[in-house]
Amino acid sequence: MNQHENYTLIGPFTQILTMANLPEAGPITDDELEVLEDGGVVVSDGKIKLIGKYNVLLKVAQEEHYRLEKISEPMVLIPGLIDSHTHICFAGSRANDYAMRVAGKSYLEIARSGGGILDSVRKTREATVVELVDLLKKRCDRHLNEGVTTCEVKSGYGLTVEEELKMLEAIKLVNKHHELDLVPTCLAAHMRPPEHTDSKVYLQHILDELLPQVKEQGLADRVDIFIEDTAFTELESLEYLTAAKELGFDITVHADQFSTDGSRVAAEVGAVSADHLEASGDEEIVLLKEAGVVATVLPGASLGLGMHYAPARKMLDGGLCVAIATDWNPGSAPMGDLIMQAALIGAAEKLTIAETLAAITTRAAKALNLTDRGCLTKGTQADMIAFESSNYKEILYFQGKLKPTIVWKQGRRV
Amino acid sequence: MNQHENYTLIGPFTQILTMANLPEAGPITDDELEVLEDGGVVVSDGKIKLIGKYNVLLKVAQEEHYRLEKISEPMVLIPGLIDSHTHICFAGSRANDYAMRVAGKSYLEIARSGGGILDSVRKTREATVVELVDLLKKRCDRHLNEGVTTCEVKSGYGLTVEEELKMLEAIKLVNKHHELDLVPTCLAAHMRPPEHTDSKVYLQHILDELLPQVKEQGLADRVDIFIEDTAFTELESLEYLTAAKELGFDITVHADQFSTDGSRVAAEVGAVSADHLEASGDEEIVLLKEAGVVATVLPGASLGLGMHYAPARKMLDGGLCVAIATDWNPGSAPMGDLIMQAALIGAAEKLTIAETLAAITTRAAKALNLTDRGCLTKGTQADMIAFESSNYKEILYFQGKLKPTIVWKQGRRV
Ligand SMILES: [Zn+2]
Ligand SMILES: [Zn+2]
Repeated sequence: MNQHENYTLIGPFTQILTMANLPEAGPITDDELEVLEDGGVVVSDGKIKLIGKYNVLLKVAQEEHYRLEKISEPMVLIPGLIDSHTHICFAGSRANDYAMRVAGKSYLEIARSGGGILDSVRKTREATVVELVDLLKKRCDRHLNEGVTTCEVKSGYGLTVEEELKMLEAIKLVNKHHELDLVPTCLAAHMRPPEHTDSKVYLQHILDELLPQVKEQGLADRVDIFIEDTAFTELESLEYLTAAKELGFDITVHADQFSTDGSRVAAEVGAVSADHLEASGDEEIVLLKEAGVVATVLPGASLGLGMHYAPARKMLDGGLCVAIATDWNPGSAPMGDLIMQAALIGAAEKLTIAETLAAITTRAAKALNLTDRGCLTKGTQADMIAFESSNYKEILYFQGKLKPTIVWKQGRRV
Repeated sequence: MNQHENYTLIGPFTQILTMANLPEAGPITDDELEVLEDGGVVVSDGKIKLIGKYNVLLKVAQEEHYRLEKISEPMVLIPGLIDSHTHICFAGSRANDYAMRVAGKSYLEIARSGGGILDSVRKTREATVVELVDLLKKRCDRHLNEGVTTCEVKSGYGLTVEEELKMLEAIKLVNKHHELDLVPTCLAAHMRPPEHTDSKVYLQHILDELLPQVKEQGLADRVDIFIEDTAFTELESLEYLTAAKELGFDITVHADQFSTDGSRVAAEVGAVSADHLEASGDEEIVLLKEAGVVATVLPGASLGLGMHYAPARKMLDGGLCVAIATDWNPGSAPMGDLIMQAALIGAAEKLTIAETLAAITTRAAKALNLTDRGCLTKGTQADMIAFESSNYKEILYFQGKLKPTIVWKQGRRV
């Protein structure tokens, strides 16, 4: 038996968009994209072994007795998508909040009527781990189906040590059994829970009681906080994140959604990414640039709240590495469609096809500190999605209505 | 045999949103919506015969030997959706235009590189009727699947007598064989074709040679024109539409997308609807209101071009009847998802759930002068769609990601 019998050649593809060899930050033109016409990919052990012209690879494959996985329709292949910011571990819907918001009711009126984040906290606390697993799994199914092969998921609807652990365990369980790779993040600092009157006391409690357990049990390597007048202040956040970093966590923050303290904290603490940034201006862009923080914009929140997008064009022109994520959550971003949202912010902010696709592949990988995916080259994880098309530009042109026909996770069709 | 054996009781539905008895124009609060809890519908010969409490109807059904179509999941029933403005009879994709546009290229640069409407004209002219029928059918399949049971379709990529007739024949053929009801509109006045140097001469040619044939062959009852500096002027439009009206056509116009002459023409000529209206202000709203013209806003064009929405909130507050349509076309609006687009403009413009749903049902029917659909009451066409949900607010809350599970066209599941 040949040593290469577990190698598989997949193809031919009309186009393979590798997303490799692109600038790590700043503008990208479509001309910079590497497009292999009539390409093929050889995968083995979940990784890409070879990538290139199909006819050339076919010869090798025949000589070396690789398996062949034949593609018979015209298709465009791109890396599996990465959604680097979600809150999809939750129970309950917030359709009534939504109806009040579009009817012009204020955040406060909605909260008074029993809505807002606390409603999701209540329902998520009431749910068992099994129920949460089931809900999360369904959302992962949909995401995978729509081409997302790696997805960050935050806790943050527990807001007690026990309930946050419950959420992170649910995420761990789904991650273990689902083809979609989940990247968990501890967002115990989503907001001050109703049981606490002092934010500092709550954050210290989390630092003392929750984060060490999270670390020890391997439940998450990332810590997040919501920096906003309505959540945690600049100073509270800085102290909390500095301590979390000392515990060995990567840092990401919810920053500049309405005010602009967050990006300052992100830069100061050396966060991997700062997310939201709808309110960011020139000053914040410089801060993030100098500190090497990935700027993750969240069009789903803009669409859900009916507000303007983060200034993604300005950010790219300012030299930032811009990722796009869904922020999929039951309150402000209930849609959860990554390609559609990326296309919409791209059309509004005038991002090139290259910039938009990089923001949901290679640059989103950077936002999660993942170096083994986001582009298709020798050695990367064979997470790939194929669209029935002969022109990669159609993926964004149809603004989310062209769905991938085939999804491979680590080289296997799912 | 009982005379009622061709009656069918469908239900029970957790909620039936009838969309009946709503104001014909102006604001609507969600409280004004008629929501039947645990409701049922009796249909026969494609029409609704009875609508009310399921248990009450079930007794009647058993006594009168109606057929029963049982719904076993919690579901919300609403009228089939009406997309009152599309251009889905076309060949070719304009993904390259899209890529140039998001890269910041101007309309002129795109046209110079062989893009723009003329590219669609070229490809549509090259297509045979059979090819057009096939392309149109596929788009109708998707629309029906997503809950659209009546759809307007414009010609306008032919721009010669022969080619416009070809498009209208393709629409007629699909309408004959597809469950989706199509409402054809002659848009020979989409733009001045390259073969003509004088707009007035072209319009007169259409009036003399095309419209009488359209009328005679029953290919369309509606005439549309694109009023814009880049297409036809106010005066040209007014003369053309006045003559078309005299030939017996209903009038609709593409108005106020960039400038504001169009709504003036619409009001003056007594158009059924004026569509686009992104540039409309207070003055235009008053004009349309006084003339009783339906204001059809097209979020798909805003999303496709990355520009602002028409001021739908202002229009409703100004007393207009506001419809929402996709404008689905290969250039400015390639997405074509009615619920999603309605939800997005609703979230941005702060339209109530009631206003947004009315804009794609009963008020869209008004935009097409259809009195037999758009709401669920005794005597209306049994076009109905059901969503797996117990709360009608979720239809818009999920911003297009909750698709109808069941679609009935004239009482039959499709
Ligand atoms: Zn978030
Ligand atoms: Zn149009």
